Amino acid sequence: MDKQQLIDCHERIKPFIHNTPVLTSRLINKIAGTHLYFKCENFQRMGAFKMRGAANAIMQLTDAQKQNGVVTHSSGNFAQALSLSAQSLGVKAYIVMPSSAPQVKKEAVKSYGGILIECEPNLEARELASEQIVEKYGATFIHPSNDDQVILGQGTACKELLELHPDLDFVVTPVGGGGLIAGCALSAHYFGNHCKTIGGEPFEVDDAYRSLKSGKIETNTTTNTIADGLKTQLGDKNFPIIQKHVDEIIRVTEEEIIEAMRLIWERLKIVCEPSSAVALAAVLKKKNKFKDKKVGIVISGGNVDLSHLPF
Amino acid sequence: MDKQQLIDCHERIKPFIHNTPVLTSRLINKIAGTHLYFKCENFQRMGAFKMRGAANAIMQLTDAQKQNGVVTHSSGNFAQALSLSAQSLGVKAYIVMPSSAPQVKKEAVKSYGGILIECEPNLEARELASEQIVEKYGATFIHPSNDDQVILGQGTACKELLELHPDLDFVVTPVGGGGLIAGCALSAHYFGNHCKTIGGEPFEVDDAYRSLKSGKIETNTTTNTIADGLKTQLGDKNFPIIQKHVDEIIRVTEEEIIEAMRLIWERLKIVCEPSSAVALAAVLKKKNKFKDKKVGIVISGGNVDLSHLPF
Repeated sequence: MDKQQLIDCHERIKPFIHNTPVLTSRLINKIAGTHLYFKCENFQRMGAFKMRGAANAIMQLTDAQKQNGVVTHSSGNFAQALSLSAQSLGVKAYIVMPSSAPQVKKEAVKSYGGILIECEPNLEARELASEQIVEKYGATFIHPSNDDQVILGQGTACKELLELHPDLDFVVTPVGGGGLIAGCALSAHYFGNHCKTIGGEPFEVDDAYRSLKSGKIETNTTTNTIADGLKTQLGDKNFPIIQKHVDEIIRVTEEEIIEAMRLIWERLKIVCEPSSAVALAAVLKKKNKFKDKKVGIVISGGNVDLSHLPF
Repeated sequence: MDKQQLIDCHERIKPFIHNTPVLTSRLINKIAGTHLYFKCENFQRMGAFKMRGAANAIMQLTDAQKQNGVVTHSSGNFAQALSLSAQSLGVKAYIVMPSSAPQVKKEAVKSYGGILIECEPNLEARELASEQIVEKYGATFIHPSNDDQVILGQGTACKELLELHPDLDFVVTPVGGGGLIAGCALSAHYFGNHCKTIGGEPFEVDDAYRSLKSGKIETNTTTNTIADGLKTQLGDKNFPIIQKHVDEIIRVTEEEIIEAMRLIWERLKIVCEPSSAVALAAVLKKKNKFKDKKVGIVISGGNVDLSHLPF
């Protein structure tokens, strides 16, 4: 994917997304020993960066494809992002979700106009249900992270950050399915001034870290992390980009994630997801690497259940 | 106090405060049936609007007064605001706090350079300790809310809001000691276009509501509210302003405060104090009054103990 594709993508989705604010905190800078710029995608529409990729993916469909709608399986932010993007663009969105998903997430999808399809809570059932929608309605399947158009869309978060702060030394994002970090790594490569891309990942689901070591896509056998957006694995579209353009993946403990999350809530006064805090936790983990540098951090989202906080 | 004093005050304190952002939420607008503009003083330096009044009060002292320092008694945001303002201006700040105050608040004052003076946890002890500081060091006592310079400073929050949205029909603030609402009412009067000022107050500490009814400053015999910033009463400097320029005070229940707070956290993705939520709760309480109007809401602060949330 080249520079012009990122520029075109950004122009295309601008009417459907917010150019989210960038916040700073003197106190967090003091603690981290560096200069941090928090790109607040928790203030994005539907509360997460996923809106960018979802909007771009739908906009790149042909008119015939748009008429038949889109489908994805997700119980997270991408379900809401695809629903809201589709609604904004007058397209039907079928969302396959495990029946065990929290009621609040089901309601959120429906509130954004998504058509909810419930299935058994396992990957096979989700994939089967998605395939059935594709066959029945001719809908186009859109993967939450392993899709070129999704990757381009997510990369616009980093592009906006670099437009405000062109001289960042690093951009740090959490690593889940790999769409965000791959897109941001492309933007850092094309729009940055020697800006390196770093990933933050929980030790408990360190598949991306291990994938970079082994050279092939690794999986997680257990997913005992509070960062529920990061349990997924990389895909064949984003992994090569990550291999080429990501400098390092830094792993953090659950305690470090919660500590970073508390710091963001207490000092930036914003509500972010545990997954978002992983990026700050990574910076705090390797202070020497980032000492006195200019570091962009993508706060990936803010959809969190206030009744189940780790504080 | 006249228009020019507010203008001068604003120019004076600008180097020491943030012009905080104004956020909106389509979903909260839909729920409220109106157009809401949230002035986010939780993003203010030290996390609350109090920074404005504290900075202005210190800046208006003579050089001789500045040399002897300032003193206040507060266990809340004004203690931190006076400490940080004084530090920024190279002035000593003596902060009288009850020994029973949470350790985290004592640490916050010290981290901003304030000199902590502990006393017995009652009003008499606090006033006596303050008087002793005045006598001993020649320090100037600055009241957290009943001081003309403090009132002017707090009013700049509403002035900034009206600079962005000059055609607001209403501005709504929480009512505690009366400094914020008095200052904002002055700004609404001088800079608004028929903009009315409304207060939100918990039923549990409805002294301001009763004061407006009776025509004299009323007190609270009990203060069982989650909105811990609103337990104080009005003073002789701000009460006449409130009588003249505040249109109405709307009382809300504790449940309504918590519900509004949850809405702000979940939908605006920001961390605010329970006291801040009282203003939104007031709007939701009287939807007919605000229907389809343009309403500014001052989110007064974001210093909240994450270990003791009401959710």
